[in-house]
Amino acid sequence: MSNFSEFKPLNENTLIEYIKTIPSLSSKLNNDFSNLSVKEVGDGNLNLVFIVSNSNGSFVIKQALPYVRLIGESWKMTKERAYFESLALKEKGKLCPEHVPEVYHFDRTMSLIGMCYLEPPHIILRKGLVTGVEYPLIAEHMSDFIAKTLFFSSLLFRSTTDHKRDVAEFCGNVELCRLTEQVIFSDPYKVSEHNHWTSPYLDRDAEAIREDNLLKLEIAELKSKFCERAQALLHADLHTSSVMVTRESTQVIDPEFAFYGPMGFDIGAFLGNLILAFFSQDGHADETNDRKGYKEWILKTIENTWNLFHHKFTALWDEHRNGAGEAYLPAIYNNPEVQLLVQKKYMTDLFHDSLGFAAAKMIRRIVGVAHVEDFESITDAAKRATCEKRALDFAKILLKERRKFESISEIVSVIRQI
Amino acid sequence: MSNFSEFKPLNENTLIEYIKTIPSLSSKLNNDFSNLSVKEVGDGNLNLVFIVSNSNGSFVIKQALPYVRLIGESWKMTKERAYFESLALKEKGKLCPEHVPEVYHFDRTMSLIGMCYLEPPHIILRKGLVTGVEYPLIAEHMSDFIAKTLFFSSLLFRSTTDHKRDVAEFCGNVELCRLTEQVIFSDPYKVSEHNHWTSPYLDRDAEAIREDNLLKLEIAELKSKFCERAQALLHADLHTSSVMVTRESTQVIDPEFAFYGPMGFDIGAFLGNLILAFFSQDGHADETNDRKGYKEWILKTIENTWNLFHHKFTALWDEHRNGAGEAYLPAIYNNPEVQLLVQKKYMTDLFHDSLGFAAAKMIRRIVGVAHVEDFESITDAAKRATCEKRALDFAKILLKERRKFESISEIVSVIRQI
Repeated sequence: MSNFSEFKPLNENTLIEYIKTIPSLSSKLNNDFSNLSVKEVGDGNLNLVFIVSNSNGSFVIKQALPYVRLIGESWKMTKERAYFESLALKEKGKLCPEHVPEVYHFDRTMSLIGMCYLEPPHIILRKGLVTGVEYPLIAEHMSDFIAKTLFFSSLLFRSTTDHKRDVAEFCGNVELCRLTEQVIFSDPYKVSEHNHWTSPYLDRDAEAIREDNLLKLEIAELKSKFCERAQALLHADLHTSSVMVTRESTQVIDPEFAFYGPMGFDIGAFLGNLILAFFSQDGHADETNDRKGYKEWILKTIENTWNLFHHKFTALWDEHRNGAGEAYLPAIYNNPEVQLLVQKKYMTDLFHDSLGFAAAKMIRRIVGVAHVEDFESITDAAKRATCEKRALDFAKILLKERRKFESISEIVSVIRQI
Repeated sequence: MSNFSEFKPLNENTLIEYIKTIPSLSSKLNNDFSNLSVKEVGDGNLNLVFIVSNSNGSFVIKQALPYVRLIGESWKMTKERAYFESLALKEKGKLCPEHVPEVYHFDRTMSLIGMCYLEPPHIILRKGLVTGVEYPLIAEHMSDFIAKTLFFSSLLFRSTTDHKRDVAEFCGNVELCRLTEQVIFSDPYKVSEHNHWTSPYLDRDAEAIREDNLLKLEIAELKSKFCERAQALLHADLHTSSVMVTRESTQVIDPEFAFYGPMGFDIGAFLGNLILAFFSQDGHADETNDRKGYKEWILKTIENTWNLFHHKFTALWDEHRNGAGEAYLPAIYNNPEVQLLVQKKYMTDLFHDSLGFAAAKMIRRIVGVAHVEDFESITDAAKRATCEKRALDFAKILLKERRKFESISEIVSVIRQI
């Protein structure tokens, strides 16, 4: 035990020693370490990830490192994020167990989570989108996850007392919030050493963003919501690489950025990354597959995700209207007209927030520090730049004019016109 | 010491025993207890307040009780609020020492604050407004207090790290937040045993509020901002009985409701209570004083308070534009046009928030649980009801149509027209 009484990054050998000391993990392997397979597979920006398995069972070990792996040891990042990730996995797992991997073990000293291994053919959704695979249940599943996790952690369902207690707890995840503030709401709009883009094609576009006063006005409003508005417990990094899928299964992973923030940030993250996937498709088209049908499927998925979310979220609201939620007391919101009125306003505001955050997420993936495989895997730079430019142009429209849209089908129409 | 090792409400005798054990208090009296004057003067809704003095010096002792004094021991209320009051007094005292009484001593176990006694002729501002006294510096002083305490506790001046740490701390004051939610944002809009009004004159008006769907829509938006938006450290109970004045001095007391909330809540509390004072004046007019000149002074004070606040707040913003505040990074907001654009939007939103909260504060003082001396001291019920009805009609317009107003002078015009 004393070997792990203080933090140390594990490797494939020390990990086995560690597992031997943890009954909840070693029991998954039936305490048999003779034919153990241990693979480090972390391809993310921040952490070590090991898959551990033998013929008896398997699990994943995720260990946070005290810096941003993508950038290097110079960009410090608290490993306490593992604590908030484990909290969020457990909380969201309670609310939506179908779409969240089970946590078997958490070690705060080692910043280490042991959790369910999502076996093949599970892959990262983004990789599926790049190769052109349709997931017929993805909108159904993601709308379920988003609706449940947001609704049940909001004041529509909870008391102020519970809300403020949990808001206070997740204020501790401030370093991860700061990273988001920097890479999404700040860096793309200023000169930053970390920014990059498909140069020279997008040089002028990146510059135009840094000179666009109206865009800066809008991103300031979104940043203020991100920093100040504790509306629900967010995943807070809900892009298409935080989702693992098969045709039948959808699992949301990696909520280490979790905190209480504006709901639209989660919805926008997912929609914005689907829109990036859409605009990248022309770069993946070849003589065997023109991707036209696939683009239609993505558009339909964008539309279905919002519409199903809207339907499920308002259904939860209706179902729990007389519950403990303190935002809309039944004694006040006591007739169908006023119920319709407040719900319509709430959902319209949420739609506009979601569109704004979707746009912010798109922009930062094209001219900011962290790009997406959807575009990066297009090897022809000119072709990649053409795709990226369309996405960027659309995102700018969305950020500036989001309040004019009333339905997701209008958004899909604009995407088609770009 | 052991006599005070656990909480007990003090009386005029036990208080002296207590003071003897506290050097920072007894030294103010030069350790002379022979000719001590101790008076319990708490006329508020929640606490015991003692004035302690002898020929050497003086101070005030404020002790929180574990219930709402106004209602009785049945309405429980954590005495931990004294901790948040002392925190807020110290923090706001640092930011604006001219207008906040100094804290000499705080005892968390006893829920007790020892602080500067504001000597006569200091009186509660509301009492001065009822008797018709002009305070020539009140707009200057209150705009100073509000601008400094809000600006310096916001992300315009502070880092996200400091902000989230303090937001988390003040989440602990949740019981006082809940009381506000109930008495301001809920009870007036529903049937509640605590509500009362000048009956039968306002029966129909109280009922109309409970049936007004548009009013309920607006109050929901404000409640959501109150519960979710951590914009700055508020006083959170900044009405005219939380201010003590002479012609030369203005002192803000009683921040036991302090928490991180929307700035407009403080500004609106003060403006709304000035507007109540205005509408009460006709009830105080008599043959010796028609109060016409005084009404003009109140309107001018309303106008000056906002305009001076606006001027001082934006001046602080300009002065600290290149400081540590993380909301608007100078590398992004790097030209005069965009600076003007974001500042204008920020101040317009804040103005509309302030008007909304002002209206909410007015409504609750006429049909809710806690009324104001401005109206209560009008003994003729019919006359009182006429004044209250005008205030109520104005507040309803303000709550519903606040977004149409662009300047405080427009508000003053509407007040005149009622």
